[in-house]
Amino acid sequence: MRIAIDTLGGDAGPAAAVHGAAAAVLAWPGLAIDLFGPVDQLSVELENLPRRLAAAGSHLSVHHAPGLIRQDQRPSDALRRGGQTSMALMLDHVADNGAAAGVSAGNTGALMALARRALGTVASIPRPAICTAIPTRGDGRCYLLDLGANVDASASRLVDFARMGEVMARHVDGLSSPRVALLNVGSEGTKGSETVREADALLAQMGSMNYTGFVEGDGIFAGSADVVVCDGFVGNAVLKASEGLARMLIERVQATFESHWGSRLVGMLARPALLRLKGELDPVRYNGASLLGLDGIVIKSHGSADATGFSYAVLRAAQEVSRGLPERLAFELGGRH
Amino acid sequence: MRIAIDTLGGDAGPAAAVHGAAAAVLAWPGLAIDLFGPVDQLSVELENLPRRLAAAGSHLSVHHAPGLIRQDQRPSDALRRGGQTSMALMLDHVADNGAAAGVSAGNTGALMALARRALGTVASIPRPAICTAIPTRGDGRCYLLDLGANVDASASRLVDFARMGEVMARHVDGLSSPRVALLNVGSEGTKGSETVREADALLAQMGSMNYTGFVEGDGIFAGSADVVVCDGFVGNAVLKASEGLARMLIERVQATFESHWGSRLVGMLARPALLRLKGELDPVRYNGASLLGLDGIVIKSHGSADATGFSYAVLRAAQEVSRGLPERLAFELGGRH
Repeated sequence: MRIAIDTLGGDAGPAAAVHGAAAAVLAWPGLAIDLFGPVDQLSVELENLPRRLAAAGSHLSVHHAPGLIRQDQRPSDALRRGGQTSMALMLDHVADNGAAAGVSAGNTGALMALARRALGTVASIPRPAICTAIPTRGDGRCYLLDLGANVDASASRLVDFARMGEVMARHVDGLSSPRVALLNVGSEGTKGSETVREADALLAQMGSMNYTGFVEGDGIFAGSADVVVCDGFVGNAVLKASEGLARMLIERVQATFESHWGSRLVGMLARPALLRLKGELDPVRYNGASLLGLDGIVIKSHGSADATGFSYAVLRAAQEVSRGLPERLAFELGGRH
Repeated sequence: MRIAIDTLGGDAGPAAAVHGAAAAVLAWPGLAIDLFGPVDQLSVELENLPRRLAAAGSHLSVHHAPGLIRQDQRPSDALRRGGQTSMALMLDHVADNGAAAGVSAGNTGALMALARRALGTVASIPRPAICTAIPTRGDGRCYLLDLGANVDASASRLVDFARMGEVMARHVDGLSSPRVALLNVGSEGTKGSETVREADALLAQMGSMNYTGFVEGDGIFAGSADVVVCDGFVGNAVLKASEGLARMLIERVQATFESHWGSRLVGMLARPALLRLKGELDPVRYNGASLLGLDGIVIKSHGSADATGFSYAVLRAAQEVSRGLPERLAFELGGRH
């Protein structure tokens, strides 16, 4: 299996992408990586691979791509002028079947626009959604979508998100009948916006799906659903607020322990455990997010992901490839026509 | 100062409300409380006040109210048939100037509807918003509104929320120039829904306000704004997701420590600190939420608040009374006409 990687665009520069790719190769037997970026920079990174990653070197190929999509660049500008960038060339490579999936830590809006142009969408899905797995109580997980690709989503778009998330949970996670819920401000049918109530009615009519009705914000983490669907504005706000809260909470837990026991000892002992927890609770930074609904697989790694975070995004891509996600989506959602 | 309390509607029954009221009386010199609920139940609670609260007993008066607004009752039904309930009679008492503020742990939608009918709104505010103070990094706080009273809020309603939150932060918290931000999916002006971009343009034109522009979800907890404004659907989802995440995180921190050190000792030592933290991170349960924009003061205590949570809601009401919040709102926002 071959995966293409845009090595530019992440906050940490190409090092995190290259090291992350190498770590993924060591973790997934048979994986090969096509790295896109400035050949001189990438060569330096490959020569300086840490010893623990050196064995992966022969599975990494360099593809020269001189240009960079900036984090503040508009999608329309990326479409017009981004042709020779590492992001666009990586996506073209996936579209030409040079690789089975693509990964980038760059500008999300530009990635979505360029990926749609290069790969197109699955039949019947007008626009992809962004989706990630959120940790839940009892060591579970829950797919939350959309995370920002579609603000002001209509009821029928919310239904699309539900169908796509359900296919993801069923085929990638192997759940036989994923529980799908719709995010709302109350659990009664009389509450919420008109759009959400309309989507609720549409989903309730779909006999093929295990639709469990409304869930409130706390339900996302409660483990009561495998897929939670919402408008991209809401999902983005919830996800980023959760990241911010987790960061604050970890700080406070540490400060509380340090003050409580009058010594920094416990804080120091606890730090590794807390850092691991912080990673787990920062799902996009940890796992990346899927651009779901493309006729192909593209994973967005967090802009500030380190090598570990980037390697998880690559492994996520490999997992979606191995489960044939786009084909499953096309088969199951295309049937609506 | 006299505050009216609806003792029914909370999950814990009248005990939490009565004990919470007593605790508030002990914490706020000169406070007197009018308790609304079934006289027989309230008499029992007052007779059985714990010794540490007994001194407050003479400041608590019982007002008989036989009926209860149920948690699942629709606002329209509460308006039609809720006349003799503890919630409605408590609000009538505030409207008749029998008390300076009201507190309830009951059905939020019904409370909002009954409060609007009993008290009316401040001039120029068509509908109140729900607002609470969220803890931020560096031991700060930030008002978040709306939390669910207005789904599908228009741009001009978002501007109303900003103005109300700003008055709250300035007069109740004493900030000279509160930083007001608008929640969005990106910090650039080109991102987000049309409504949010329109509200941004309106707020940027208001010279009188320290409007700092867009903030993303993680900015709520970052301490970079004193007031964060959003649609009620988004605010509700963010607040409840935060509650759910905080609960999960505290559980995991505890489990991590217990497994990490191979003993339950640290978990047991840490539990009191973690519980305190959990309370702080559950702002509505801890502090209650203000129904902001009413021509009067009404605080919603969390349905599952214990006596401590309820007492904080009562103290929040007392604080808003002492700062003359409705008069300030009327004076500053009425000027728009």
